Amino acid sequence: MPTQSTSRADRIIARCREIASFTEVPGETTRTFLSPPMHEVHALLRRWMEAAGMTVNIDAIGNLRGLYPGLTPNAPRFLIASHLDTVPNAGAFDGVLGVILGLAVIEELRDQHLPFAIQVIGFSEEEGVRFNKPFLGSLGLVGKLDTETLARTDSNGTSLTQAIRNFGLNPDELSSAVTTSDTFAYLEFHIEQGPVLEDEDSQLGIVNTIVGQTRLQLTFTGQSNHAGTTPMHLRRDALAAAAEWIVATETCANRQADLVATVGKIEARPGAINVIPGEVTVSLDLRHHNDDTRQSAVTSLLDSATAIASKRNVNVSPQFLSQQDAVPMNAQLTHLLYIAAAQTGHSSRIMTSGAGHDAMIIAPHIPSAMLFLRTPGGLSHHPDELVLPQDVEAALATAMEFLTLLRDSPPLHNKLTLKDAHA
Amino acid sequence: MPTQSTSRADRIIARCREIASFTEVPGETTRTFLSPPMHEVHALLRRWMEAAGMTVNIDAIGNLRGLYPGLTPNAPRFLIASHLDTVPNAGAFDGVLGVILGLAVIEELRDQHLPFAIQVIGFSEEEGVRFNKPFLGSLGLVGKLDTETLARTDSNGTSLTQAIRNFGLNPDELSSAVTTSDTFAYLEFHIEQGPVLEDEDSQLGIVNTIVGQTRLQLTFTGQSNHAGTTPMHLRRDALAAAAEWIVATETCANRQADLVATVGKIEARPGAINVIPGEVTVSLDLRHHNDDTRQSAVTSLLDSATAIASKRNVNVSPQFLSQQDAVPMNAQLTHLLYIAAAQTGHSSRIMTSGAGHDAMIIAPHIPSAMLFLRTPGGLSHHPDELVLPQDVEAALATAMEFLTLLRDSPPLHNKLTLKDAHA
Repeated sequence: MPTQSTSRADRIIARCREIASFTEVPGETTRTFLSPPMHEVHALLRRWMEAAGMTVNIDAIGNLRGLYPGLTPNAPRFLIASHLDTVPNAGAFDGVLGVILGLAVIEELRDQHLPFAIQVIGFSEEEGVRFNKPFLGSLGLVGKLDTETLARTDSNGTSLTQAIRNFGLNPDELSSAVTTSDTFAYLEFHIEQGPVLEDEDSQLGIVNTIVGQTRLQLTFTGQSNHAGTTPMHLRRDALAAAAEWIVATETCANRQADLVATVGKIEARPGAINVIPGEVTVSLDLRHHNDDTRQSAVTSLLDSATAIASKRNVNVSPQFLSQQDAVPMNAQLTHLLYIAAAQTGHSSRIMTSGAGHDAMIIAPHIPSAMLFLRTPGGLSHHPDELVLPQDVEAALATAMEFLTLLRDSPPLHNKLTLKDAHA
Repeated sequence: MPTQSTSRADRIIARCREIASFTEVPGETTRTFLSPPMHEVHALLRRWMEAAGMTVNIDAIGNLRGLYPGLTPNAPRFLIASHLDTVPNAGAFDGVLGVILGLAVIEELRDQHLPFAIQVIGFSEEEGVRFNKPFLGSLGLVGKLDTETLARTDSNGTSLTQAIRNFGLNPDELSSAVTTSDTFAYLEFHIEQGPVLEDEDSQLGIVNTIVGQTRLQLTFTGQSNHAGTTPMHLRRDALAAAAEWIVATETCANRQADLVATVGKIEARPGAINVIPGEVTVSLDLRHHNDDTRQSAVTSLLDSATAIASKRNVNVSPQFLSQQDAVPMNAQLTHLLYIAAAQTGHSSRIMTSGAGHDAMIIAPHIPSAMLFLRTPGGLSHHPDELVLPQDVEAALATAMEFLTLLRDSPPLHNKLTLKDAHA
């Protein structure tokens, strides 16, 4: 347990590590949606939250919710949230840090109250491990859990509805998990899970947009043939075509600011050392904060694939796998975060989030903001995941200043965003 | 059965198809080394050979050998050979056609005899399927079966020595399988198994060299990372590096006459759509008729890999898998074949063999020549493998003329080859 002489940042980090000890798999941190160790996490957090003056409940999708009241009984509600579930063999900070920082904000208020209530939420599910669908906790908060999702089964054949019952909750009460209509803003702390802040020597990232994403695969079909008896000019080599396209894809992404394009999977058939590949399938994951830019890059890369294939007498066919438009954060909240970081003397930068977060689900319904903390080595989803005490301190100080600014601000306009202003 | 009105080419093709009916796997042609159906093939060939005036035996490695005597008892020996084993689900002509054409040559002599004996050999093994090592029949003929090879086991755990016994042969007699010291020349007919003759509208190919070959693999090691949160300029993408090298490899081969370079295998790890590949392994199969050219291309491609990796902050390490120097055919025999084709009015070209053949094993010991027949569509190792009757006719007519020229030629000089003159 942290002693009184421990800094508040060290105490937050120690709490995250304590929560990491609750796991389905001894010796590592693996804690999926509504798994038994989540009960222990809830019990510990409930104790800490109640000690800080909060009223705690678990909603029907398994979110832990601690309410710190406002100055008046009918004060509107401000949310600070992140998730409590983990990937297999996880680190201690992805998700959990955002909840513990929310708790720390309440503790820093030291029984002072604001014109708004603050609810700190530990979402039950964000990683998508158990039911192969992410964001179940935040979807429950905004009333977007649908029947297809509730009927999903995990690897043991247990449905989501049954999993809720097995945890001791009542799926008939899911509608009451939806946040109140007076909820006016949402803040999520999260580790960056990327190398940008470290590379630019910034402590904090203020997210203006969660990028949009297109996933597809391309199949190049040429003619498999003997590697020794087929001269170069008579080949229809599907792998040579795919390789040229991978290089073109990288060049395209390098030329367009903030575009990231990744070929993560490749399969060449028949896959023998002495046979020219006749068929190659490659994947593409393409992300950008501007949907038009992303769509235009997709079109350009498909045109490029067609041109490369055509000159080689190879065929190419695309298959779209998924598509997600960019989700802007609220411009006013983002601006307040930026000012709060500056006024407390911490280095920050406006940036996009290249990964999805609960804020992506919440933002279309509630004005939202996200604050990233630098991730040493960009390392995440790994037991060695870290966060630096000085960055935790910076995030907490920024959040306290942000609350002051928020208290003194005019009402929020959700439609005004920094979507196109981050460059 | 072919009727008397069938052309001799059609009769040869029909015989190949009849032999293709002897198989380990009903419904396809699969006939590996010393498998039961090889007994039936031997029985049929023995009948045909004896009818043509040949004395037939099976040597200790399972080669079927039919001897057609020369004018005198001590006449030197000329060999015509190819193989009787097949790949799984094979066509009817790879290997077998060469043996049936040898038989047809004897039949065309119509009991005339030459100053040399002719032995037609159906090698027991060339494809390397059963013991994962090719050329067992021709290695036996030149006395190069070693103890490591004899101790090899097939997928059932049967050793090569035991397989010989199981077929009814005696491995103690392997030394008597070695061809007689008065064997002065070797001729192999084979389908091209490539697209060159068809593309150039030639019926026949006269092989001057069996190309040399280098096989290696390269492993590019970068850093796997999140596809969304890692900007392009902070990536160490092993697949992008490998793709650039594959393109460079193809460009290098396109620029060097007769060089063929093939990347047939590629594996990217971890191989997830949303993860930048951290490690990629690719294979290289590189062939050329000139060993210096091939070695210099290998050096150049390794330099290219190092340069590509270096500028990307990626590591690359090569692993050499195998190396085989080019094997020249005998220049005089090759020249005689060329003249014979021209004098019988058939289109031919001097060419390299991009694939290995029994002639590659024989040539270092006995002056050797190879005659390729055009392969429609370049299709081989496939049930749809074909040969055209007019090309079979051309090969037979060329062989008969070749025998006449050989009879009237001065003794052969094995060291004089067309190795560097084919361009």
